[in-house]
Amino acid sequence: MSDAVYRSTVGRDYTPDQIKAISTGLRSIVGAERVSCHEEDLLCHAYDATMIEARPDWVVWPDNAGQVAAILKLATRYHVPVVPRGAGSGLTGGSLPVRGGIVLSLSRMDRIISLEPENMLAEVEPGVINADLDRAAARYGLFYPPDPASFEFSTLGGNVAESAGGLRAVKYGVTRDYVLGLEAVLPNGDLIRTGSRTAKCVVGYDLTRLLVGSEGTLAVFTKLILRLVSRPEAVKTILAIFPDVHAAAQVVSALNSRTILPTTLEFMDRSSIDCVKKFAHITVDEKAGALLLIEIDGPHETIERQAQNLIELCRQHTSLEIILSHSDEERDALWKARRAISPALHQIAPDKFNEDVVVPRSKIPDLVSRLEAISQTHNLTIVSFGHAGDGNIHVNILTDLAQPGTRERVDAALHELFRHTIELGGTISGEHGIGLTKAPFLSMELDPVTLAIMKKIKRVFDPLDILNPGKIFNDNHHD
Amino acid sequence: MSDAVYRSTVGRDYTPDQIKAISTGLRSIVGAERVSCHEEDLLCHAYDATMIEARPDWVVWPDNAGQVAAILKLATRYHVPVVPRGAGSGLTGGSLPVRGGIVLSLSRMDRIISLEPENMLAEVEPGVINADLDRAAARYGLFYPPDPASFEFSTLGGNVAESAGGLRAVKYGVTRDYVLGLEAVLPNGDLIRTGSRTAKCVVGYDLTRLLVGSEGTLAVFTKLILRLVSRPEAVKTILAIFPDVHAAAQVVSALNSRTILPTTLEFMDRSSIDCVKKFAHITVDEKAGALLLIEIDGPHETIERQAQNLIELCRQHTSLEIILSHSDEERDALWKARRAISPALHQIAPDKFNEDVVVPRSKIPDLVSRLEAISQTHNLTIVSFGHAGDGNIHVNILTDLAQPGTRERVDAALHELFRHTIELGGTISGEHGIGLTKAPFLSMELDPVTLAIMKKIKRVFDPLDILNPGKIFNDNHHD
Repeated sequence: MSDAVYRSTVGRDYTPDQIKAISTGLRSIVGAERVSCHEEDLLCHAYDATMIEARPDWVVWPDNAGQVAAILKLATRYHVPVVPRGAGSGLTGGSLPVRGGIVLSLSRMDRIISLEPENMLAEVEPGVINADLDRAAARYGLFYPPDPASFEFSTLGGNVAESAGGLRAVKYGVTRDYVLGLEAVLPNGDLIRTGSRTAKCVVGYDLTRLLVGSEGTLAVFTKLILRLVSRPEAVKTILAIFPDVHAAAQVVSALNSRTILPTTLEFMDRSSIDCVKKFAHITVDEKAGALLLIEIDGPHETIERQAQNLIELCRQHTSLEIILSHSDEERDALWKARRAISPALHQIAPDKFNEDVVVPRSKIPDLVSRLEAISQTHNLTIVSFGHAGDGNIHVNILTDLAQPGTRERVDAALHELFRHTIELGGTISGEHGIGLTKAPFLSMELDPVTLAIMKKIKRVFDPLDILNPGKIFNDNHHD
Repeated sequence: MSDAVYRSTVGRDYTPDQIKAISTGLRSIVGAERVSCHEEDLLCHAYDATMIEARPDWVVWPDNAGQVAAILKLATRYHVPVVPRGAGSGLTGGSLPVRGGIVLSLSRMDRIISLEPENMLAEVEPGVINADLDRAAARYGLFYPPDPASFEFSTLGGNVAESAGGLRAVKYGVTRDYVLGLEAVLPNGDLIRTGSRTAKCVVGYDLTRLLVGSEGTLAVFTKLILRLVSRPEAVKTILAIFPDVHAAAQVVSALNSRTILPTTLEFMDRSSIDCVKKFAHITVDEKAGALLLIEIDGPHETIERQAQNLIELCRQHTSLEIILSHSDEERDALWKARRAISPALHQIAPDKFNEDVVVPRSKIPDLVSRLEAISQTHNLTIVSFGHAGDGNIHVNILTDLAQPGTRERVDAALHELFRHTIELGGTISGEHGIGLTKAPFLSMELDPVTLAIMKKIKRVFDPLDILNPGKIFNDNHHD
């Protein structure tokens, strides 16, 4: 999406004297070199992965919780919007300063404070990169499983703010399942500590999980206590090609009764396969109508038997070809097609709408059929792939918004997609969050009473509406 | 604890005409036979496992969400306290009607609405007994892991309200980790639906996890969507006896580096062992100073190796005796001592304070040493056992409150226990909740800002303070 540009309201709402006071205040908190109003810094912090532009008025890089608290106190005094930001890799505009104000970059708060093998946890600052924590954990035989596609560059603070999912969620769950406790600063500058350093904790309301997935609208995280697990002894990858999507979907359904819980169960439809064949020059069987990439992990002895079990299952469901990895190199080769999709999609059309709907696993075939109908009705290219193991399908509408009438067709298609998803017992966002782009659709899934409760909770934390304003809630309901 | 009796305030605050109108209203909602003001019903609903007495004015047994909503609307109109109740097996007074009013028994809402193997979930009413769901799941090779000690009689609604833990939490987590979504009625009678039927869902704030563990103070659950997992292929149990608590604690710490995650890792100290020897006539080695009961589960091939690995580990740490189960009968025999503790404790002294503190696993030896000091300082019998695998130790103070000055010594000991727990980075309740009995200690763990946020959240859901009033929050802070 590239049709929206948001402008700051700060210039309109504040006097030059107030703007000067805010600048001076910020400099006195973090030092002059950690505040910027330079055009290039503002532009660099005006985007996330949606390609919508929203320019802030200030970018600030605090070093510690005390500075974060002081910045929020200052912002409260002048009613200035503050938007916390990790790597800016979000897919729904969550870190965009749509009303201008301060972008609070947590990138300098990137220390792993402690890594405690005996307690199987890590305490980290929000700016730590996801993959860096996992690499540090690996040195102790430990594992941080949540792996959003962005794991090599997205920050743990951002992951927690969105409750990021990923490929391994089938077996290991999502970010939410790894957050034991938080230190966070409220919009008024007060610091709170939630949860504990233990798995069990039932002391008052679960503010930890309320803050996880709150998309930077309730508090700014300054410390995360994250649970680690034992690293699996071995990993095996199987690539299976099927003549059509229904055969692949049956394998997904049948997996249950085998008591095999794959780590990863990725799905690609015919369009995705065609796309990687054409643009990434990957060779796949001519008759391939669907592809499953299955990864299992666990103890050595078990994994061999499970792999054979899986291969047999795929054979029973008319798979055309099955490849099992025997080394890390072979494993990487099998992942090539899956990893090539996202870059390849960008070559098909200038605009891409990537929606991360989820349906109960048994409804995947229904969803796939309905996607075909939506594609035909609205004459739009739709490419689907993703996390079949947990029913989380990434539906990509590929189009060119410059063509007249396209925007309307896309809106109609999205509306239908979300309606069908909800009808099938699903949810409109599995891992990307609501942010800005899905806010108009929120009331399709949530009833007015639930929405009202959520808005009141927002006011409990942020009565002045200064923290990441304009996100999640939106008054332009589609229903 | 048996020293407190709470009286209804309804008789004082309402006119006879209002009381009559409430009775008539309740009968018209659920039918005359599902409302009671009989002395025997009021008394039966005046207790939970704390033995504190708090008598309601009405007991009502609704059949469905519509009736629950109508009861809450009526209660809102007359400002009558409503206390939801499952099996009344709570350990902190959570289901006691301390201000009188209506006890809302969910015992008749006990249907398993659906059990979906393909989606690995169940939809249940709140009155379903924990073990009944697991038995139903077992028919499909599925498993509902959370197993509070009360699993044969406690209800899932109550389990979710407390985020109940249990023995298997080491590997499988607690109740919170199995709740995907909820249907709940707010104090004003509005019905909301939270979460989804999918593992991934990031649509607005996570009201599901906010309601989990909210101890019946925010909403009344009328439907639970619970996640199921695959049933393990095999289970093995190992009982290991050690000369002292420190050897046992070292085994607990060393387990990590072996990449073995036990399902259950139970601990008994010398006092617990003496107690079961004396009162349950169980034979244990004379020199036994600590005992570990370790259970592992998983695929057949793996579990054999892991069991041998564990036995070797225990031997390295000077275990006096190690017994491995080879059958279900042998497994039951090993569990005999652990299961005998709670009943045996009741024979030692008339009053028992059972506190479920949690410390990071590495701090268990420190906690055990401090418990010895507390016991000596205050001249109190303290027996400790519990879930060493997740640092959750059940500390039992056994005493006779009828003796003058005992109450004061117990209070001082509890205060010290909680202070030490927090100093060690732990939490004052791992699985029992705060309810009534721990409310005076809440502010030892939570800072004033966090407490204020929680109280505001309570007001968002329950502005009239009619839903389970007097729980969690308490103005008699100990700090």
